[in-house]
Amino acid sequence: MTTTAIATQQFISSAQMLEHWQGHRNLTRRVIDAFPEKELFEFSIGGMRPFAKLAVELISIAGPGLKGIVDHQEEKFSEEAFQPKTKEEILAKWDSETEVINHYFNLISEERFQEMFNLFGQYEFPVYQNILYFIDNEVHHRGQGYTYLRALGIDPPFFWERF
Amino acid sequence: MTTTAIATQQFISSAQMLEHWQGHRNLTRRVIDAFPEKELFEFSIGGMRPFAKLAVELISIAGPGLKGIVDHQEEKFSEEAFQPKTKEEILAKWDSETEVINHYFNLISEERFQEMFNLFGQYEFPVYQNILYFIDNEVHHRGQGYTYLRALGIDPPFFWERF
Repeated sequence: MTTTAIATQQFISSAQMLEHWQGHRNLTRRVIDAFPEKELFEFSIGGMRPFAKLAVELISIAGPGLKGIVDHQEEKFSEEAFQPKTKEEILAKWDSETEVINHYFNLISEERFQEMFNLFGQYEFPVYQNILYFIDNEVHHRGQGYTYLRALGIDPPFFWERF
Repeated sequence: MTTTAIATQQFISSAQMLEHWQGHRNLTRRVIDAFPEKELFEFSIGGMRPFAKLAVELISIAGPGLKGIVDHQEEKFSEEAFQPKTKEEILAKWDSETEVINHYFNLISEERFQEMFNLFGQYEFPVYQNILYFIDNEVHHRGQGYTYLRALGIDPPFFWERF
């Protein structure tokens, strides 16, 4: 195999990446749901945010970020638009954002994934890196969520269960 | 854009995926290094494994998993081969595995990423999904590590610093 082949050959298609992400989102939904109502909004370790706050961050990044990429809008990141008071509200928003993510992700072309974009007017990276950041950030915060659940004596869902 | 285009168009090249993974591995290395020696091997929340054990798991998956894929060997997963007693041993092994990962990852072709492989004789998935699992599992456990560090009153490294 030549070096050129390695540099340009495909690792994963965009349809596979979207499916992979939605699998992660299914798991994150289960983690949100595993928290008792009160602990979802209040429990914390070492001064970190409760899991409800982390879920709101994830909701505020994914759909709005993809919409920004597609519309070439560099609007500032904000978590103000969604201030849920219950687990049910978070889960309902999580589910409606699933369709938003599918819609906008499927509008991004192979060429666009490689273009630079100043996400939220602040994070200038190739589009594929911005999207990987959304997913990695979700897996990262969910790892925190697993630790919160264990500290609460609650068994978290299996990491490999995605669909 | 047709549905076929979405299904087959590239999200990320294999060279970009390898670079992305090694960026994550650099960050995980910083998280290992941020633990005091004793806490690395002993500190735990909610009955979970100390971070040294998680690091050994990651080391036992990445290089050996890629070697298995390349050699078509379905040898059973084992953490027995590496039983470090110090942080220095873990970091040295982490660094030598960097080269092992680069070597084997670069031997996998575009077609092979899409083929099924029974990883460790146990996890039958397309090769790209097995590799994404290695990375996601690392980000997941590192999220636990961040929570351990916060609980210990130690500031973890910035999530976005990778190189």
